[in-house]
Amino acid sequence: MMPIEPLIPAPPGIVILDQTRLPHATRTLTLCTVEACAQAIEAMQVRGAPLIGVTAAFGVALAMQADATDAGLVAALTRLAHTRPTAINLHWALGRMAEHLKHVVPAARAEAAWQHACMLRDADIAANAAIGRNGQPLFEGDGAPVRVMTHCNAGTLATCGGGTALAPIYHAAARGRAVHVWVSETRPRNQGLLTAWELEHAGIPHCVIADNAAGLLLMRGEVDLVIVGADRIAANGDTANKIGTYLKALAAVAHNVPFYVAAPTSSVDTDCRSGTDIPIEGRAAEEMQQVWGVDANGDPASLVQTRAPCANPAFDITPAGLIRGIITEKGLFAPEHILEALA
Amino acid sequence: MMPIEPLIPAPPGIVILDQTRLPHATRTLTLCTVEACAQAIEAMQVRGAPLIGVTAAFGVALAMQADATDAGLVAALTRLAHTRPTAINLHWALGRMAEHLKHVVPAARAEAAWQHACMLRDADIAANAAIGRNGQPLFEGDGAPVRVMTHCNAGTLATCGGGTALAPIYHAAARGRAVHVWVSETRPRNQGLLTAWELEHAGIPHCVIADNAAGLLLMRGEVDLVIVGADRIAANGDTANKIGTYLKALAAVAHNVPFYVAAPTSSVDTDCRSGTDIPIEGRAAEEMQQVWGVDANGDPASLVQTRAPCANPAFDITPAGLIRGIITEKGLFAPEHILEALA
Repeated sequence: MMPIEPLIPAPPGIVILDQTRLPHATRTLTLCTVEACAQAIEAMQVRGAPLIGVTAAFGVALAMQADATDAGLVAALTRLAHTRPTAINLHWALGRMAEHLKHVVPAARAEAAWQHACMLRDADIAANAAIGRNGQPLFEGDGAPVRVMTHCNAGTLATCGGGTALAPIYHAAARGRAVHVWVSETRPRNQGLLTAWELEHAGIPHCVIADNAAGLLLMRGEVDLVIVGADRIAANGDTANKIGTYLKALAAVAHNVPFYVAAPTSSVDTDCRSGTDIPIEGRAAEEMQQVWGVDANGDPASLVQTRAPCANPAFDITPAGLIRGIITEKGLFAPEHILEALA
Repeated sequence: MMPIEPLIPAPPGIVILDQTRLPHATRTLTLCTVEACAQAIEAMQVRGAPLIGVTAAFGVALAMQADATDAGLVAALTRLAHTRPTAINLHWALGRMAEHLKHVVPAARAEAAWQHACMLRDADIAANAAIGRNGQPLFEGDGAPVRVMTHCNAGTLATCGGGTALAPIYHAAARGRAVHVWVSETRPRNQGLLTAWELEHAGIPHCVIADNAAGLLLMRGEVDLVIVGADRIAANGDTANKIGTYLKALAAVAHNVPFYVAAPTSSVDTDCRSGTDIPIEGRAAEEMQQVWGVDANGDPASLVQTRAPCANPAFDITPAGLIRGIITEKGLFAPEHILEALA
């Protein structure tokens, strides 16, 4: 089985999977400039907090190939920092690149930046593997399949390698544990279909549900465990993740089903004391307004556009009190002790 | 402004709005047989618990025009009873028709059945108006707009007239109260677009959101009140309604926002002691699998079909403990006292 490769360094650029075409088509794009990287992040051709971070790091490296002056570095950092507001991994990666490059002379920056971006990618892959291992206490026993619910896509496609929320699932399956994954559709952009696609690729049993169905499944006792990713974790453990995560957390807690967040420590933002400090991206109404339906002639294969006014927040906040634990590459932490993962 | 007419008696048939074409096209269908009525219910060309009930009543009346024997009556009742399982109004209306017709000689049944179906329609319109009036305590004051969240469509299109969940909103707006309605998309069939369509028709400010966004809006304090409809209310007040209702109730209660159900007393099923007795319809996976997206060529205007396995429960149960009150045509009741509405 060929592994899924969301981002491959391939000088003079990087090759990404265009996630706006998945799961319907597997198309790669070669990005050779900082602007191409910024636009790929904005258009969600690359998405997922860890992958956004590493893409931005390579964006800086590509910028250094064109203009390695201090001004060029500042311009690249500024352009990339304004692509998407919620995932802190973006700013973390830019900060790491800036810190590394500030003492490198311009003549050496192109090479240094590329090497550092590659190192951040390798570190992400290693973090994914560690998250997979550190999540194994959730999959104890050897009996009936563990029925895991997830939301959005926090898998291979959201990272450089083995995923965050899906990493413990992949790890458990690899060591022979039976698992079944409930995949919520994740409107309005249907990232659940990305999750279904990569689970099918990995041969892991799964079932897609409407986001609305999560409460009923939890009430019926059909879910043993919920694991989601994170776009930003505040110092108190409050967690921003894809819109709809909070509703799943409420329902999980209502039925005493453990709700876990899986994320690298680069998702922790010590500057945010709580979830109220985390900026929530509002995306274009057009994402909502293009809906599936029959058109005026009853033709189900045509584009249907509604004129209805829409609001489209892309993330919500799950309070730390609803989270049983946060699985990081450093170990499994209670949300109120997440800062210990940074020690 | 022309009123919206979801069902008009027009001998020798009934004229319905085809709700599978709305909001993109306004198409009427004339149904002249019991089979046509049954298929319209199954295909959700008519939908909404009260409207399903009255459509079934007219189905019986149309059957009596073709075969008014006892055998014909039993066949019609049986066919219609098996169209959809969750909305109890269907069985309530069939029971009312059967009770009325059992003492009528076959020669008089066609006329008697038609008159009784018309009476049930009139009663539904009257119940809608009473629900509108009885919900006014929720709209006290005259200050800032009351921001109401609803789910699915429990409006004019779900009834023969003024709606259930939307009735108090229409009534409040008519007496000059400022209102704003958050309309959740209601995947997988997007009935929220029906709600947006009829609110636009009525000139009431509204905004469509992804179902996933309900929790964030409630957390942010952007919702004053939640009102939903019901497909069946158990004797203890547990309420079955469109899938996703339960998640909204959990989030409303978490933020101390009152959560109300609005329904005619024909939605109460005394044979169900609690929500666990209510059958939940599972609908075809195809409803989930036809999703909006670009196709393999990147064309956004083509049908995209996923192969992912899907589960598609159509309703969920909101426990009585999450419901502040149930607004009926008989008044506003605490859920645990809903049986008093039948007294």
